[in-house]
Amino acid sequence: MNISHIEHLGIAVKSLEEAIPYYENILGLKCYSIEEVADQKVKTAFFKVGQTKIELLEPTSEDSTIAKFIEKRGEGIHHMAFAIEDGVANALAEVEAKGVRLIDKAPRKGAEGLNIAFLHPKSTCSVLTELCENPNK
Amino acid sequence: MNISHIEHLGIAVKSLEEAIPYYENILGLKCYSIEEVADQKVKTAFFKVGQTKIELLEPTSEDSTIAKFIEKRGEGIHHMAFAIEDGVANALAEVEAKGVRLIDKAPRKGAEGLNIAFLHPKSTCSVLTELCENPNK
Repeated sequence: MNISHIEHLGIAVKSLEEAIPYYENILGLKCYSIEEVADQKVKTAFFKVGQTKIELLEPTSEDSTIAKFIEKRGEGIHHMAFAIEDGVANALAEVEAKGVRLIDKAPRKGAEGLNIAFLHPKSTCSVLTELCENPNK
Repeated sequence: MNISHIEHLGIAVKSLEEAIPYYENILGLKCYSIEEVADQKVKTAFFKVGQTKIELLEPTSEDSTIAKFIEKRGEGIHHMAFAIEDGVANALAEVEAKGVRLIDKAPRKGAEGLNIAFLHPKSTCSVLTELCENPNK
């Protein structure tokens, strides 16, 4: 697969309201979008840092995977997402053929309209890894 | 402070020998440098992904902070490092004045000859955060 850059980092937080002021007032970044992703049961806040976005993830339900992550490990970096130049579907087929365990067998819609799929951390040295492509590019 | 991009992501691994093949053969990235950082008791392997580096961190001693991290939380993303345009010393002074707890009161030398300093995760929404500048730029 052809990775161009780190598209975003997903960071689990208990409360966007508490976290956004840190990113804005201390780090000097600007929150440019807040979006609820209903099927992932999260509310997201986005910041741009060079080529990469920081995506804060606040759970909207106790059975959200982000709520479970925070309960087990505390707040912190939840996943790393790569921008894929030659298509997420191709990349999934390629890595599955190499024995990588997939969470998503096919691309689905994520935040910001991207096509996304997750690889299982059992196959990625314990880093939950997302592949992304912008369908409008 | 003026952050230009994410300089690197530090990822704790038990073994570079086991992790490097995943990054090279599955993700298609190229390890361009392996470096031991004696005072942090780690051996590092670097990959470039767009503007950002991935820095794998293997502990070289049981009392390395990376060994303790892996023991407590398992392998995974350990820290996020920002490239600072207006100097790490200035940024430390600025965030300390805003009440941020510092791990390093002054910049010190890190891998690749960068000037670096860490902020305490208690002040950074639980993400261990490093500030970096390239003294040769």
